[in-house]
Amino acid sequence: MTRSLITLRSPDWLVALERRSKQAFPDVEERMDFVIGLSRKNIAVGAGGPFGAAVFNSDDGTLLSCGVNLVLDGRCSMLHAEIAAIIRAQIKTGTHDLSASGLPPFELVTSTEPCVMCFGAVTWSGIKRLVCGARREDAEYIGFDEGEKPLTWKEALENRGIEVLRDVLRNEAASVLKEYRKRGGRIYNPQRS
Amino acid sequence: MTRSLITLRSPDWLVALERRSKQAFPDVEERMDFVIGLSRKNIAVGAGGPFGAAVFNSDDGTLLSCGVNLVLDGRCSMLHAEIAAIIRAQIKTGTHDLSASGLPPFELVTSTEPCVMCFGAVTWSGIKRLVCGARREDAEYIGFDEGEKPLTWKEALENRGIEVLRDVLRNEAASVLKEYRKRGGRIYNPQRS
Repeated sequence: MTRSLITLRSPDWLVALERRSKQAFPDVEERMDFVIGLSRKNIAVGAGGPFGAAVFNSDDGTLLSCGVNLVLDGRCSMLHAEIAAIIRAQIKTGTHDLSASGLPPFELVTSTEPCVMCFGAVTWSGIKRLVCGARREDAEYIGFDEGEKPLTWKEALENRGIEVLRDVLRNEAASVLKEYRKRGGRIYNPQRS
Repeated sequence: MTRSLITLRSPDWLVALERRSKQAFPDVEERMDFVIGLSRKNIAVGAGGPFGAAVFNSDDGTLLSCGVNLVLDGRCSMLHAEIAAIIRAQIKTGTHDLSASGLPPFELVTSTEPCVMCFGAVTWSGIKRLVCGARREDAEYIGFDEGEKPLTWKEALENRGIEVLRDVLRNEAASVLKEYRKRGGRIYNPQRS
């Protein structure tokens, strides 16, 4: 007998989008455009910050899993979009290692480059490529804190065999962040009162 | 209507231990001793790496939540002991921010100092103090990878108002890591084949 450690709920609309998993997104801009759509939708529903991410099969462009920032709805500071997408991907493949033999190469596409925690999570996940839209300065510009990520984070991932592609549709991704601020969206950094 | 994003199961023995939450652990060595016990127990059950962590009320030493490494059992590369303990703590308090007003100060006690991902997670969690047993070199000695954590990680946390205490019962904590290696415990770094 076991007890639930945590049950995280995935919003209906996210599950519905994931059902498009047979659809292929042939090029990286299409994948990023889809992920930016997740970040925009997350502003509308207010589950957390304006961030989206998804895991794709790098070979054929099919979608494996989606994630959005669920920090507020999930009452969990670790539920960044990248974490949610990786959790779903690992559940779907049944392994903690997305680079396990027998699996195709997977890539994580994220509307904003990862914070220090998600940088670490990428390191352990087994993904082979990281594709980023907005930069950390775009997130920090609207008040989000990205943490003490090493300045050489891109090189660190590449040294581990994880390709990093940045600035894919950066302007479009950053415009969603600005929209969040304009609407008065909550910046949920710890109070440390 | 929502669908489950993920349901993580907490082993019975961990839940039973958490029920000791009314028990106070007055000093930091007692808290660390308890957490080292979690890491030792996790070797016996084989849920993941030989790591334990717990969140305590810093004021009165009561236990809020427990975590062990569940990477293998949970098939999730992010289920490090620190992450599991923080998730449980945030569920129990009902907030993503353990430093929210009205809450006592909380501390995370971990049998081995955090990897880069958990360092980031600590930053976002709202805990006020981090207490570490074994050092990263103790974990790396047996083959675990701790990632590209900034060399100034301790100072980075302290600059954010999070106190860091290291080397608490380090030898005892490190001896559990050695025991894991001796027993042939699995080192589950990504294959990147």
